[in-house]
Amino acid sequence: MDNKYIDSWLESRKNRKKTVLPEVLFEGIKSGDVAALSSAITLLESTRPEDKQASNLLIQMCLPFAGKSIRVGVTGVPGVGKSTFIEAFGMNLIQQGKKLAVLAIDPSSGKSGGSILGDKTRMNELSMAKNAFIRPSPAGNSLGGVARKTRESILLCEVAGFDYILVETVGVGQSETAVHSMVDFFLLLMLAGAGDELQGIKRGIMEMADALVITKADGDNVKKSNLARQEYQNAMHLFPPNKNGWIPKALTCSSLEGHSIGKISDLILEFVSKTKDNQFFDLRRHEQDQFWMHETLKELILADFFEDETHQEAILNLEKQVVKGEISSFAAAEKLYRQFKNKS
Amino acid sequence: MDNKYIDSWLESRKNRKKTVLPEVLFEGIKSGDVAALSSAITLLESTRPEDKQASNLLIQMCLPFAGKSIRVGVTGVPGVGKSTFIEAFGMNLIQQGKKLAVLAIDPSSGKSGGSILGDKTRMNELSMAKNAFIRPSPAGNSLGGVARKTRESILLCEVAGFDYILVETVGVGQSETAVHSMVDFFLLLMLAGAGDELQGIKRGIMEMADALVITKADGDNVKKSNLARQEYQNAMHLFPPNKNGWIPKALTCSSLEGHSIGKISDLILEFVSKTKDNQFFDLRRHEQDQFWMHETLKELILADFFEDETHQEAILNLEKQVVKGEISSFAAAEKLYRQFKNKS
Repeated sequence: MDNKYIDSWLESRKNRKKTVLPEVLFEGIKSGDVAALSSAITLLESTRPEDKQASNLLIQMCLPFAGKSIRVGVTGVPGVGKSTFIEAFGMNLIQQGKKLAVLAIDPSSGKSGGSILGDKTRMNELSMAKNAFIRPSPAGNSLGGVARKTRESILLCEVAGFDYILVETVGVGQSETAVHSMVDFFLLLMLAGAGDELQGIKRGIMEMADALVITKADGDNVKKSNLARQEYQNAMHLFPPNKNGWIPKALTCSSLEGHSIGKISDLILEFVSKTKDNQFFDLRRHEQDQFWMHETLKELILADFFEDETHQEAILNLEKQVVKGEISSFAAAEKLYRQFKNKS
Repeated sequence: MDNKYIDSWLESRKNRKKTVLPEVLFEGIKSGDVAALSSAITLLESTRPEDKQASNLLIQMCLPFAGKSIRVGVTGVPGVGKSTFIEAFGMNLIQQGKKLAVLAIDPSSGKSGGSILGDKTRMNELSMAKNAFIRPSPAGNSLGGVARKTRESILLCEVAGFDYILVETVGVGQSETAVHSMVDFFLLLMLAGAGDELQGIKRGIMEMADALVITKADGDNVKKSNLARQEYQNAMHLFPPNKNGWIPKALTCSSLEGHSIGKISDLILEFVSKTKDNQFFDLRRHEQDQFWMHETLKELILADFFEDETHQEAILNLEKQVVKGEISSFAAAEKLYRQFKNKS
């Protein structure tokens, strides 16, 4: 064999990143070391088997120390001013002496190459603040995978002592449901406008929101924003009540002028205090833990089927037949299932 | 062996129902014979393996002739007057010369022993009308199973020549999502009142509705109902738009006085005409076909895991550990999955 190849192989072995011991990372995170936190999240995102094992160990060590933050989901369509809002909201929390971590969940970012929060320059002040930690969305093809990484990142940030964890998402796909299932409080950002503010927002998201914030309520927009706020507040009274007794609130704010930003953190504290009093805060977290256990289990079991390329092909064929009315949905499913069982 | 036992065994063999040939049922259904339709639905509901095979054959024969009805889902909490509404709405359709089948989906009925629509006397006129067919909810433990039976019953009713298929459900559980995934038009019934009309309705249902009907708009209730209608209409304008371009409408009606019932069938026809024009009618049906294929496939694959009692036990144990923070949701899921794989 040519020496060139051996050399290059040896070189690649040398440059290969070694897995940091989870114990070392854990101690670092627990002491609030942001560099350790960063490395740990990178470890979670790794697909190498030895890294997976290490990150499982790390999470196991972290669990008893996690859970102490307030987890806030933030969603809204592109253009609503999410980054500007998070910058203003985050700086407000920091001025209150709080520590804030910002994570993002966007399963599509892996495909497009870009990622929300990737452009930290959009959050100038916050990205330089000592008590803030900003981490872009992990890449990944499946929502389940991205959700898992984000959920485990939340735990790590909590052990590192962050008081608030913001999880950002774009309100156009399936990821809001995932974010809603991992936060305590879900914030929907909207623009005032003649109805078109809703273009692009997925149906069903409004009913998930614990608060709806009309952004850019400044300058010529103030009157329109107040009107929209009132309309949404009325509409939300018509929604079925939340079982935790919380009636979602509509607010306006201006990230530019900085007004009413403080009201939102007050509202979140009111929510936390009320739901801790009536036990629903912990109940929701427990339900979320169980939800993710079941979701992950299902995903693992189904992966055995869906990872097989011949099954993918068979699905596409049967989908066509089903749509043409040549076979019923159920018969098609049974056919696919039998094919799968005969193989395994 | 005692002769008594042999005699009783022979007797039980004699009384044992024979499976009617699917070809015979198919011809009966196609000629509009309601007795054949009834037997065929009973066949769908049977759990005997030979019946399952026969019903699969029957569905396969029916498929090319199905699909021509308008499928309407009706939901609302108990007390909203669903039966009275369906009676009035159904009689109105029959007076228009239409044929109407009413099915129900209620996965809980199997457990409680009762079933919605079971009490046909609540629909006096309709149950005696020549052009109406009423069938109570099939029993079943899983929503998937009940949904499958209902969806296949829809196909059979269509082959029997029914113009409208109403699928009734109670708006408190998970079954509305299932019904929403098998109908063209989804109707939510509500009562006017000071906010408490929403008690019991699941969040998210409002955003699924193509029309919202305030029932019992008669006598002292008229003013209140009109006010509620206006409020809901305003609220629904604030919802994100449907991709089919349809803006959900709010209406009032009185099943008692019979007024405005005709408006609802007009609205449904308007919906059908609009969505057929913009292709969304067929698109929605195709999506539903694919949805049920995938749902059923997933259910079949997951059943291998969940039917094992030792797994059920392991799940309960790990759920407890997850809630206590002793193990992460993901590690727990992986543990369950490994246990499953090692066995099979």
